Amino acid sequence: MRAIPADFMARGAMLHVGGRSVEDLIAEAGGTPLFVYDLGMVAARIARFRAAFPTIQLHYAVKANPYRPLLDFIISLVDGLDVASAGELRLAVASGAEAASISFAGPGKRDFELEEAIRTGVTLNVESEGEVARALGIGERFGLRPRIAVRVNPDFEIKGSGMRMGGGAKPFGVDAERVPALVRTIIEGGAEWRGFHIFAGSQAVRAEALIEAQRATLNLAAELADAVGEPPPLVNLGGGFGIPYFAGEEPLDVEAIGYALMEAREHLPRSLKSSVFAIELGRWLVGEAGVYLTRIVDRKVSHGKTFLVTDGGMHHQLAASGNFGQVVRRNYPVAIANRMNEAAAEEASIVGCLCTPLDRLADDVMVPRAEPGDVVAVFMAGAYGLSASPQAFLGQPPALEMVVGGSD
Amino acid sequence: MRAIPADFMARGAMLHVGGRSVEDLIAEAGGTPLFVYDLGMVAARIARFRAAFPTIQLHYAVKANPYRPLLDFIISLVDGLDVASAGELRLAVASGAEAASISFAGPGKRDFELEEAIRTGVTLNVESEGEVARALGIGERFGLRPRIAVRVNPDFEIKGSGMRMGGGAKPFGVDAERVPALVRTIIEGGAEWRGFHIFAGSQAVRAEALIEAQRATLNLAAELADAVGEPPPLVNLGGGFGIPYFAGEEPLDVEAIGYALMEAREHLPRSLKSSVFAIELGRWLVGEAGVYLTRIVDRKVSHGKTFLVTDGGMHHQLAASGNFGQVVRRNYPVAIANRMNEAAAEEASIVGCLCTPLDRLADDVMVPRAEPGDVVAVFMAGAYGLSASPQAFLGQPPALEMVVGGSD
Repeated sequence: MRAIPADFMARGAMLHVGGRSVEDLIAEAGGTPLFVYDLGMVAARIARFRAAFPTIQLHYAVKANPYRPLLDFIISLVDGLDVASAGELRLAVASGAEAASISFAGPGKRDFELEEAIRTGVTLNVESEGEVARALGIGERFGLRPRIAVRVNPDFEIKGSGMRMGGGAKPFGVDAERVPALVRTIIEGGAEWRGFHIFAGSQAVRAEALIEAQRATLNLAAELADAVGEPPPLVNLGGGFGIPYFAGEEPLDVEAIGYALMEAREHLPRSLKSSVFAIELGRWLVGEAGVYLTRIVDRKVSHGKTFLVTDGGMHHQLAASGNFGQVVRRNYPVAIANRMNEAAAEEASIVGCLCTPLDRLADDVMVPRAEPGDVVAVFMAGAYGLSASPQAFLGQPPALEMVVGGSD
Repeated sequence: MRAIPADFMARGAMLHVGGRSVEDLIAEAGGTPLFVYDLGMVAARIARFRAAFPTIQLHYAVKANPYRPLLDFIISLVDGLDVASAGELRLAVASGAEAASISFAGPGKRDFELEEAIRTGVTLNVESEGEVARALGIGERFGLRPRIAVRVNPDFEIKGSGMRMGGGAKPFGVDAERVPALVRTIIEGGAEWRGFHIFAGSQAVRAEALIEAQRATLNLAAELADAVGEPPPLVNLGGGFGIPYFAGEEPLDVEAIGYALMEAREHLPRSLKSSVFAIELGRWLVGEAGVYLTRIVDRKVSHGKTFLVTDGGMHHQLAASGNFGQVVRRNYPVAIANRMNEAAAEEASIVGCLCTPLDRLADDVMVPRAEPGDVVAVFMAGAYGLSASPQAFLGQPPALEMVVGGSD
């Protein structure tokens, strides 16, 4: 497995998060399993983005982690939020985000969601001609002027991205060649055209691939703007910044991407000169800032192999169990959080408490000898963790969540 | 994809479940997405089991589907329940199941769960020596006599089973060679020894594989009973009865399995003559009885390919999306539920409303031409459906559930 992220440290035997020992955090939260999100790490990521991309807006993709205290913290540091449902929209508004800074993307928006978005004044990133017709109809019915950006299905994708969102036939966005006509429909329909949303992939860990995709995205935006004959107020360049989950993956060279984008920004075609640009990130902002803490309930040996059975599992950490879109299961970085100063002494498999062979947190990893009562830390747990897991499965108790650090 | 299960029928254009049209059911439930469970189909399955296995107890594995009205119905028709957490235990007791008929298996039982089980009087299917020590300690502390069966990790597995639960090193149960000593510890520790739980796999669709596994299970139980020197009161033979999700799979020949087991039961070794036998089923009892109904929100074309976007998706149907332990994604049977009398007219992909490429309900299936407002039915949705899915993902509204048929 990969080494644990460098931002985490131990004092003596004990892993610390945000400067506090995990046993203290567990005691404060009231037990395990517990997700801890380090706001200091999130703030550092945002600062790093700001330094590398000084003239680019930063949007947070709420779907990566909608935990309210985390969201409240992030809102004050970013320029906008991307939401993917009416539920996330309500959460964003409740957290104090301004409607004008919220955009709503998603291929299956229902009428009630379009209506709520239009009433609230958020930007709809529309995904089809049919959705535009419904949005214009709702605007007309209620005498409101919808704000609409067009999500574009680009002809390219980010090479090597963990999830392909563009390139070829896709349920997301509108094929590029049909976009200019759709923008004219929007403008002629009386809506406020907000620009383009071009999302070519996610979880890319090679800077060159992202540089190439951003260059292609700018070219596509310029072509579309020329075809429309009006400059897009906003161009959302998508995101796709990945984090290194597995052995052999390296942290993304964000500064290289920023340098290339800033240079490209200097030589923009006339049609994009007045546009605002945004990058929309979820996983890269919060993924490494989260750690999942789960206590060992049993230690057992079967046919010579050691199993550490924990009180957590795939019902909170579907992705770490290898069941969230992965073709091949690989281990997330893990540690025995109260034996950080002990050398690895045995090979063990760490499993969850669910009565299914799918519930694996780490297969055949070298760890210090661990006993019931010890705490397992699963890193890289800040994005697509609890909210992306089958929490009701097998009637297990819910996981706890907390934030540490940040302004205090 | 496989044809839809034969128990479902259409009247005119409309799919009917439990004799009622899906549009009526959706109106009664209050919308989509909606899971409908046909109690008549569940009852028919139970009756079929009873006919094939006249002297074998039938237990229901609550984890397959814990929806309360379904559970209430099943309890009156089976001999026992298997639960996998304190949460499921509470649900079983609240539904009126007798404690003596409940068994509790699971590799990560916490102390509070052991205590609750022992206080309630349910049988613990223990998974390790450590768990026995904790259970005996809790019994002593509270002056209660725990009921304990030993879950055995057999040296064999059901050939071709969808999930391997036995054979080799596993987190479940105790390796067979250590079981006799553990049973003596239980008896000498003053607990009530309830017998063996031997679970060799699940989701097997070949009768011969199950016949072979049951024969091996009986042999193993006899060997263990001889080594213990006392007959096990109960031998839980596990389950593993699969259902045919995919093209090329056939329904399980349950009668052949019953015939073989009844014959084996005639020639039991002396050490098992007084034992009660049970089979524990979840998926086979309820899987085919459930259908997931989701309405089409958008119809769109990308690069010549048609996408039908629905108001449901992987947040309710993780398994159908191909993200629940499957190595290769294959389509569950689906239909346009309000166009059952129309011939397949086009190839389309049916996707969910989530903004992720993982959210696919059917890839490239031939269906009648469908429009927004039409209803998609995803079959085989009765087991490991809603409760095994990431319901909170992307802040989508919850799915509805209802039962139809049964005694009325």
